[in-house]
Amino acid sequence: MERHNNLWRNAVALPAVSRVAVCGGTHGNELAGVYLVRERLKRRGADGTEPVSVVTVMSNPRATQLCVRYVETDLNRCFTQAMLSTPVSEASPYEMIRSQELNALLGPKGSGQAVDLLCDLHNTTANMGLCLITYSDRDWICLHICKHLQREMASTPVRYVHFDIPLNEAYSLDSVGKHGFAMEIGPQPHGVVRSAIFSAMQEGVQLMLDWICQFNSGTLFEGGWVDVYTTVKNIDYPRDPETHEITAAVHPDLQDRDFCLLHPGDPMFLSFSGETLRYKGKEALYPFFINEGAYYEKGIALSLARKKRVEIPSVHSETLR
Amino acid sequence: MERHNNLWRNAVALPAVSRVAVCGGTHGNELAGVYLVRERLKRRGADGTEPVSVVTVMSNPRATQLCVRYVETDLNRCFTQAMLSTPVSEASPYEMIRSQELNALLGPKGSGQAVDLLCDLHNTTANMGLCLITYSDRDWICLHICKHLQREMASTPVRYVHFDIPLNEAYSLDSVGKHGFAMEIGPQPHGVVRSAIFSAMQEGVQLMLDWICQFNSGTLFEGGWVDVYTTVKNIDYPRDPETHEITAAVHPDLQDRDFCLLHPGDPMFLSFSGETLRYKGKEALYPFFINEGAYYEKGIALSLARKKRVEIPSVHSETLR
Repeated sequence: MERHNNLWRNAVALPAVSRVAVCGGTHGNELAGVYLVRERLKRRGADGTEPVSVVTVMSNPRATQLCVRYVETDLNRCFTQAMLSTPVSEASPYEMIRSQELNALLGPKGSGQAVDLLCDLHNTTANMGLCLITYSDRDWICLHICKHLQREMASTPVRYVHFDIPLNEAYSLDSVGKHGFAMEIGPQPHGVVRSAIFSAMQEGVQLMLDWICQFNSGTLFEGGWVDVYTTVKNIDYPRDPETHEITAAVHPDLQDRDFCLLHPGDPMFLSFSGETLRYKGKEALYPFFINEGAYYEKGIALSLARKKRVEIPSVHSETLR
Repeated sequence: MERHNNLWRNAVALPAVSRVAVCGGTHGNELAGVYLVRERLKRRGADGTEPVSVVTVMSNPRATQLCVRYVETDLNRCFTQAMLSTPVSEASPYEMIRSQELNALLGPKGSGQAVDLLCDLHNTTANMGLCLITYSDRDWICLHICKHLQREMASTPVRYVHFDIPLNEAYSLDSVGKHGFAMEIGPQPHGVVRSAIFSAMQEGVQLMLDWICQFNSGTLFEGGWVDVYTTVKNIDYPRDPETHEITAAVHPDLQDRDFCLLHPGDPMFLSFSGETLRYKGKEALYPFFINEGAYYEKGIALSLARKKRVEIPSVHSETLR
């Protein structure tokens, strides 16, 4: 009982998470999110029993229709404050226009009117399991949701990835919410939906909503520790200096080993002519987004992160008690 | 010695395989073939030691440049006799024009001028290992090459798939050669190159060329049996009758189990609302191309094949002995 009282005394009171957005199809060929959003939109009305207000959004309907990542430019790079405040016309790229529509619907970013939490559904060809990708390593709501998923998801590894970028430079849709993350799940080829990946995403979204409902109802969530992977840098493929074509693939020893520590000297690439190229960094780091299909054009063969343990406080909703 | 003489006496003498074409990038986002062809084109001249004449072709350079399957229409459906003899103009789809260019370069299909063997490199998102896909179940050259790959490739399952279609209706690039097959390797996401898949393809091509060189030099290849998978039918995804959108994914119990016998009543799809749909056929058949990314638009969730054992004779080149 004393421990219980202490928990409450030391807990952080946070505003309720009243308005949630679940978005998919931000990249039109990441199909688990596309079909999950379609399912939710179908059930709308039929199942209005969720005790939290959830808006479900198909972010890029044109790209989804064509089953491509984007039509003119990558929508999920259009949400910086600068881009959101650039005047657009009919001649602007479709995704520039669409990002401002989404910002009007779910934001405005940085304002009190923004949704409380924005969960944007993504898939990757990399063997990343389920990752919550955020811009903050001390967002207690996101970190508690991550802890909840880690506790509840038996067969899917769940990790918390932190992009260390100032919020006004944050470029992705999830940055429009007061809290937000990309829920990134793989491996799944783009343009393909794999049942197990779809189910994991469905489970992740449901567990997130369950947590929010419990939080809003006054449940105290005990603090603890969460491993946070903070991005340090990206590494490009070896390329031909003239044609800029890649000359090597990710090494078989590294492929699919996302979040397994990469040491200096470990094999990183195997060139098409058979030469092994090694990791030349001085610090062992955690690779992820290894051989993500959509990042060839961005010059990213993998990202590297440093891992730290973050202590999170017990939290409860400030609207109750 | 008597066995040896008997082997020669019963062997079939076949014309030498003097001119070989190795094609890749027929689908521009199937990257193992694209990079294999680029590598071969780079080494051209530097390594003119192959004792057989090999022409290496990037089949669809525009699609390859954009990393898409095709620009206007699927090139690998443009090689029927009817399409090859359709007059084209500048207004024709790029791939219609390109198919006739390739037919002029490597064919004409059905003529004595056609290359002796055309190997067209493909990748699939399905877990198919290496397949030689052909239009004949009694092409001794293709079957012997398959047997050679099965014998020599330690870590890759090698199978022979037969599309039971008359040759003039055969629609794919490999049908332009006197002998020909698609060398299809997976699983690999489209738009991604995985090192192990690239290496398997490289090994498959090298073993094919080795076999041809030995064959042309007068080696007798002993006959035997090869399993042939003949396509019976394709099965589409369950779809919404109005929107035509898919309403289910391949069942987790079937996903990745290409060439594992599917029995009547076995789970086939898991709907997005959680319902299991079962295989309703009366005959146990072998599924392949399970959940191939490029076939959503073609209405194919998987293909089903019947397996038979085909006896192939001993063969040698008729130019020697």
